[in-house]
Amino acid sequence: MGNFKEEIARIRAFVFDVDGVFTTGDITVFPDGDFIRTYNSKDGYGVALALRKGYKVAIISGGHGKTLETRFRRLNVTAIYTQVQDKVDTLKEFMAEHGLEREEVIFMGDDLPDIEAMQYCGLAVSPADAVPEVIEVSHYVSRFDGGRGCVRDIIEQVMRARGDWGHEKGFNVIPVVV
Amino acid sequence: MGNFKEEIARIRAFVFDVDGVFTTGDITVFPDGDFIRTYNSKDGYGVALALRKGYKVAIISGGHGKTLETRFRRLNVTAIYTQVQDKVDTLKEFMAEHGLEREEVIFMGDDLPDIEAMQYCGLAVSPADAVPEVIEVSHYVSRFDGGRGCVRDIIEQVMRARGDWGHEKGFNVIPVVV
Amino acid sequence: MGNFKEEIARIRAFVFDVDGVFTTGDITVFPDGDFIRTYNSKDGYGVALALRKGYKVAIISGGHGKTLETRFRRLNVTAIYTQVQDKVDTLKEFMAEHGLEREEVIFMGDDLPDIEAMQYCGLAVSPADAVPEVIEVSHYVSRFDGGRGCVRDIIEQVMRARGDWGHEKGFNVIPVVV
Amino acid sequence: MGNFKEEIARIRAFVFDVDGVFTTGDITVFPDGDFIRTYNSKDGYGVALALRKGYKVAIISGGHGKTLETRFRRLNVTAIYTQVQDKVDTLKEFMAEHGLEREEVIFMGDDLPDIEAMQYCGLAVSPADAVPEVIEVSHYVSRFDGGRGCVRDIIEQVMRARGDWGHEKGFNVIPVVV
Repeated sequence: MGNFKEEIARIRAFVFDVDGVFTTGDITVFPDGDFIRTYNSKDGYGVALALRKGYKVAIISGGHGKTLETRFRRLNVTAIYTQVQDKVDTLKEFMAEHGLEREEVIFMGDDLPDIEAMQYCGLAVSPADAVPEVIEVSHYVSRFDGGRGCVRDIIEQVMRARGDWGHEKGFNVIPVVV
Repeated sequence: MGNFKEEIARIRAFVFDVDGVFTTGDITVFPDGDFIRTYNSKDGYGVALALRKGYKVAIISGGHGKTLETRFRRLNVTAIYTQVQDKVDTLKEFMAEHGLEREEVIFMGDDLPDIEAMQYCGLAVSPADAVPEVIEVSHYVSRFDGGRGCVRDIIEQVMRARGDWGHEKGFNVIPVVV
Repeated sequence: MGNFKEEIARIRAFVFDVDGVFTTGDITVFPDGDFIRTYNSKDGYGVALALRKGYKVAIISGGHGKTLETRFRRLNVTAIYTQVQDKVDTLKEFMAEHGLEREEVIFMGDDLPDIEAMQYCGLAVSPADAVPEVIEVSHYVSRFDGGRGCVRDIIEQVMRARGDWGHEKGFNVIPVVV
Repeated sequence: MGNFKEEIARIRAFVFDVDGVFTTGDITVFPDGDFIRTYNSKDGYGVALALRKGYKVAIISGGHGKTLETRFRRLNVTAIYTQVQDKVDTLKEFMAEHGLEREEVIFMGDDLPDIEAMQYCGLAVSPADAVPEVIEVSHYVSRFDGGRGCVRDIIEQVMRARGDWGHEKGFNVIPVVV
């Protein structure tokens, strides 16, 4: 394994699983059969700020639900892949489209289906409450659990390493009026 | 009591209570009078994987609510018993239908109505936050609370003991498109 | 203050505040303006069992919301007072209707508006996370927080003291089909 | 920095961010695309009591959602600013309208977009789980997290310092019938 400080400074794209990363893993089932998820405002601010400063952000999830995309579209994320069967294939598609090299991409996952894609990226990271197999392959484990700030943490780590972190006056988390 | 390692390797069917096992016990009451529950994605992955590898999974709950069955049908569980008055009767029905012996069945419960059915099975297990009477009759108490990974934990323990644990490439938690 | 063990054995009626007692205090605001609350299945079992064994149970809340009564009606609670301005007045009304003496009634509250009614009853009890002023006037403070089992705890304490605690075979938490 | 005890006794207006202050930061996305938030009953009681005793209360949030205003209108808060791009501008507007001096206003925030407004006010306060940059500029950090009582805590601190804290008989958290 190389030097984490150097490696993190090469990152210009974030790829995230959803359940257990952007959420605690909780899924609420609604009367109409939809699956509802709960996100964290501090994570949302991090994602919106990263996009504004030119980073690429992708969501790759095996899950589904009508609202899964809503949260991310509001934050201006455009690369949203759901009901994904093979995360590595999807990851390669995203990287090719944006001309990204493996060492420029960081993947945060929490469970077995994430491992192969995590290992394909330059850096593999996980929430504190990821399953043991995921923790084992991670270059960095956040001190925050899924849905409790782990996304914000890794975005902040990367952006600080590259000198991009900091609030812009007048910048709002939700710039799109819907 | 026998040897837990040997006993767990005989298990080929999982029976679960719902409230306090698949959930934290939280029940949210909706304007239309429905009871809404919140499940955990890591538990869901465990159930889907067990079914795929040929294990039997049953849900036996005294609770109700239009959405109680939705979560489990999505995971391909077919043996879903709700509003059950006598859990032992239902358990026997499930076992007879699938030709299961008592030592092949493990039951995870958290509260008084589960105890008799737990004791009928070969192995009785419970979440860390089960009531004291349930803890007392359990062969194994998970270190995870209800809704916080106790289901995944017991499925993983059994499947590891039988050499079945591990992600299959391309396998998705939610294989059924609904 | 008298002997708690003797005093608790005289109790035949439970009075509960709702927010912060039956719930964590969390209130979710819905698009239609309704206030949605989340209850605990272990508390529900305790209430249903107490009613079945002949105890009186009343809910006295300053809160409102279309669903506030739904949860308690399902558990067969009939004395449900909501949007109450003066809890002592309501308490006296409930006690008069059921011929209850002060030493036969226990009140569980968590915040300032509960204090006067708590002090009117024979026993004043509270969740672990009640406000300091309420803790101070309580004869017993549960080790469980609001919405995390404090209701079940006090019901179990009383019913054990009177020899009434224990599951009845075939008894279901939700005996009413709705 | 001056004397906190003296400074807090000058406060007659509270300004709060919403996400991460009145809530844990959790945002639940609904099928209709609305963002749903969960509030705390103890905080609500504090706000209602402060208003009743003549304090000014304002909500300044960058967030949106149809229900964001509902909770605060129910508590009789009239100064509700949402989808705010520049919090200092909005703060000045609120202060001018009510003839408030900087040393009379306390601001509770939890994330980067709050910092400038917090520093404009006489006192800057934050929940225990605010981001490090916010903690650094705070005169007082509550021992309670966002959505877990930090609002109630700061209201109580100010009102105690001014001799205003205490329940009024017959006073209800939700005095307005809607």
